Amino acid sequence: MSGERNDPLTVCLRGASQVFFMENALTGVLFFAAVGWASYASGNWATVIGAAIGVVVATLTAWLLDCDGPSIRAGLFGFNGVLVGAALPTFIAASPQLWVYVIVGSAASTVVTAAFSATLTKSWGIPGSTGPFVLTGWLMVAGAYTFGGLQVTGDAPKLAADYVQGAVAIPPALDLVRIFFRNIGQVFLLGNEISGAIILAGIFIASVPAGVATAAGSLIAMVVAIGMGANPATVAQGLYGFSPVLTALAVGVIFLNPSMKAALYALLATVTCVFVQGAFDVIMPPSGLPSFTAPYVLTMYLFIAPKSLLAPHPHRPVSGHPVGDAPAAK
Amino acid sequence: MSGERNDPLTVCLRGASQVFFMENALTGVLFFAAVGWASYASGNWATVIGAAIGVVVATLTAWLLDCDGPSIRAGLFGFNGVLVGAALPTFIAASPQLWVYVIVGSAASTVVTAAFSATLTKSWGIPGSTGPFVLTGWLMVAGAYTFGGLQVTGDAPKLAADYVQGAVAIPPALDLVRIFFRNIGQVFLLGNEISGAIILAGIFIASVPAGVATAAGSLIAMVVAIGMGANPATVAQGLYGFSPVLTALAVGVIFLNPSMKAALYALLATVTCVFVQGAFDVIMPPSGLPSFTAPYVLTMYLFIAPKSLLAPHPHRPVSGHPVGDAPAAK
Amino acid sequence: MSGERNDPLTVCLRGASQVFFMENALTGVLFFAAVGWASYASGNWATVIGAAIGVVVATLTAWLLDCDGPSIRAGLFGFNGVLVGAALPTFIAASPQLWVYVIVGSAASTVVTAAFSATLTKSWGIPGSTGPFVLTGWLMVAGAYTFGGLQVTGDAPKLAADYVQGAVAIPPALDLVRIFFRNIGQVFLLGNEISGAIILAGIFIASVPAGVATAAGSLIAMVVAIGMGANPATVAQGLYGFSPVLTALAVGVIFLNPSMKAALYALLATVTCVFVQGAFDVIMPPSGLPSFTAPYVLTMYLFIAPKSLLAPHPHRPVSGHPVGDAPAAK
Repeated sequence: MSGERNDPLTVCLRGASQVFFMENALTGVLFFAAVGWASYASGNWATVIGAAIGVVVATLTAWLLDCDGPSIRAGLFGFNGVLVGAALPTFIAASPQLWVYVIVGSAASTVVTAAFSATLTKSWGIPGSTGPFVLTGWLMVAGAYTFGGLQVTGDAPKLAADYVQGAVAIPPALDLVRIFFRNIGQVFLLGNEISGAIILAGIFIASVPAGVATAAGSLIAMVVAIGMGANPATVAQGLYGFSPVLTALAVGVIFLNPSMKAALYALLATVTCVFVQGAFDVIMPPSGLPSFTAPYVLTMYLFIAPKSLLAPHPHRPVSGHPVGDAPAAK
Repeated sequence: MSGERNDPLTVCLRGASQVFFMENALTGVLFFAAVGWASYASGNWATVIGAAIGVVVATLTAWLLDCDGPSIRAGLFGFNGVLVGAALPTFIAASPQLWVYVIVGSAASTVVTAAFSATLTKSWGIPGSTGPFVLTGWLMVAGAYTFGGLQVTGDAPKLAADYVQGAVAIPPALDLVRIFFRNIGQVFLLGNEISGAIILAGIFIASVPAGVATAAGSLIAMVVAIGMGANPATVAQGLYGFSPVLTALAVGVIFLNPSMKAALYALLATVTCVFVQGAFDVIMPPSGLPSFTAPYVLTMYLFIAPKSLLAPHPHRPVSGHPVGDAPAAK
Repeated sequence: MSGERNDPLTVCLRGASQVFFMENALTGVLFFAAVGWASYASGNWATVIGAAIGVVVATLTAWLLDCDGPSIRAGLFGFNGVLVGAALPTFIAASPQLWVYVIVGSAASTVVTAAFSATLTKSWGIPGSTGPFVLTGWLMVAGAYTFGGLQVTGDAPKLAADYVQGAVAIPPALDLVRIFFRNIGQVFLLGNEISGAIILAGIFIASVPAGVATAAGSLIAMVVAIGMGANPATVAQGLYGFSPVLTALAVGVIFLNPSMKAALYALLATVTCVFVQGAFDVIMPPSGLPSFTAPYVLTMYLFIAPKSLLAPHPHRPVSGHPVGDAPAAK
């Protein structure tokens, strides 16, 4: 599916498409169009410029570090960079230091991607996915608070006690449609329904099952968040949906072979992810950090890690311990 | 020790007994009696109902996921579920959404148990123990703050600076006896000395050495917490003791072969765990979360992880790195 | 390089020198001189006494646990202990309970060192380095808040919103020299430029390349921190420099074979570490904890973890999963 063309532009567009697990340059074009539309709507062009710098720098860094060639060409070293590049200008005002930050952060995201591969993937078969973006993004945004050359523009830190909850009330139909698409747009940190629709189109172009899973994830997240009485303003921005969308797609279509059992398993994962999203909304704010796609990353890691035939460790002595090892083993 | 009977009720009771590493349905009956007594005393029946739902749903989920049969029958997929089921109604007021939460949380606890097995246990021989309960419980309680259908009833979040410390003062004898048993009851989140006594009886029924280690752990925790000047009100509720109790039992009897050296090692682990308990009392509250058995889990992981003959990495180049690898290796 | 002499004093001095990856008793003497000078300057003699107790207890514990003999003699079980022993009296006022704390903490640091070896090093070739000190130190300092017998003397917890940033302004030359040496002294938690100079001399005695990398790391950290507009008061204390100093040394000289590419990689790691230092300055304070060398530990782990020829997990099904595994595999 990686096609014949491997020029730098195609490779970088593929990198953008890998945010949703696709490997399709045209999908990447649509994803950039979605980010560009949101930049146009918000007037903050730094987001789309940052995304472009991010994917180029991350891919170039992988090439300089002699990383695996087929992986580079498939865009697997680019999607964390594009997210770092889009996220930093979303949370930090433009300044000369911001661009230093975007370049260093994107380059570091490639090192972190390689580190996740050499640990989680090598030992346990857990795909790093957007975990490297989350870790790099957290460190960079947190660090920004301490540098005068960087101005963090997000919300002020707050404690769990400050949370606003909602009663169970179903929004009007037009709002439901907006939420449906914003749940998808927020994967690229875009609270814009048009951008969400463009992204969904890009996914369907590359894979119909992936498009269906994405849509299903958005619906499930909407139903669960509203049914549990989540803050309506947060739900309306699509902030309860983007991690469940990725979870439904990853667990239901990408990382497990499709079956009825896999679909039910993906349903449990998606519902769980809505609760995990709520958890991160409480856990992160004391540090002044957004949760990014961490709820997806954690949920997906936990649901993909189990391996067949593995049993929990029984409650009896472990072997090879320096203290209290079995006498025969000494 | 798993006996002949493997009907669903026996398996679920064994799952309850595994909270204290036992594999004994009668012990499980006594553990449920202890939870029931505390529910009767507090008037909050949701706790014991939640515990029952938790062990059933967790065990059923393991069966649906084709998890290892002998492990399911030994109760190893049930004990995290029983704790999730008991914990959620302890920290969240009863509502329809609570029961959705208990069911999803218990089912998720089985997935998390399998994930811990496939990573910590497979690679390093570290038993997951109640780690899956702690992780699942944290995520569910944190998430509850953001949902209007769930009302968190615990203390408000506070910062380390708000801590109340005590002077070193030995409580009267009757209080010491209460603390001794509450240290054990709090493993099931029960601040009730009668429940603690019933649990200790259940452990002695299954294993005398386990009962002795449990009692020793409670005593050590009491002496250290009082000697360090911990907040007397917290000590009195048994909140400094439950993790050290589990640590003494796990390190001293369950996971290492008993010897004088293992006993001294378990003593160091138990004392360390009292300090780690203090640490979690400071680290967790900004997020509005209880520490659950995390102090035990972290201490036990660290004390069980070491393997014989393993040396720290010497301070010289690592091999196989893409940058700066040894010339001969290229 | 471990020489012929393996008497306890030599082994403990080597342990001190391993804080900067050296294995040289004379370097250890100079490091103790640096800590002693800072104790003399501040009047807090508990720091140097704690450091001595820490290295002795940690080394003795390793010997009692039958840890690897050559590693003990090389000082690899001592350097985390010396740091725990120096750190606890720096953040906690002297009292009888403090000395209990220093002894238990130093002993526990050896167990944690063995745990890191059996996990990070065994599976992924990642050196534990000062990670065990960071974890042990965090737990002990956090716990200290809850014990009346221990008085935490550090700053009160604060939130990210409270941060003071600076404009980009270059300090006078004399201040730059002070910062240069304090960046090195702070590795031992010493904000004293004379101590930093003694430590740098100790490193040059053992290894000229190591001394050059240490100096380069301090310079890079100073330039980046000032260029980004970090709080001038924090920069002046050397608090932006000690983790980058260790990163430059570890990545540039110790754990990778030197080359031009390794030098550029170490430069990226060092710059990244300055940002990570900023991040920890924001992430840790809500818990009332210092960051210790955590920024170095995290950055170094991420930059050392990547292995040659390892690719990120492609976005296709994983194998061996109980749900949705490939049909052929069943």
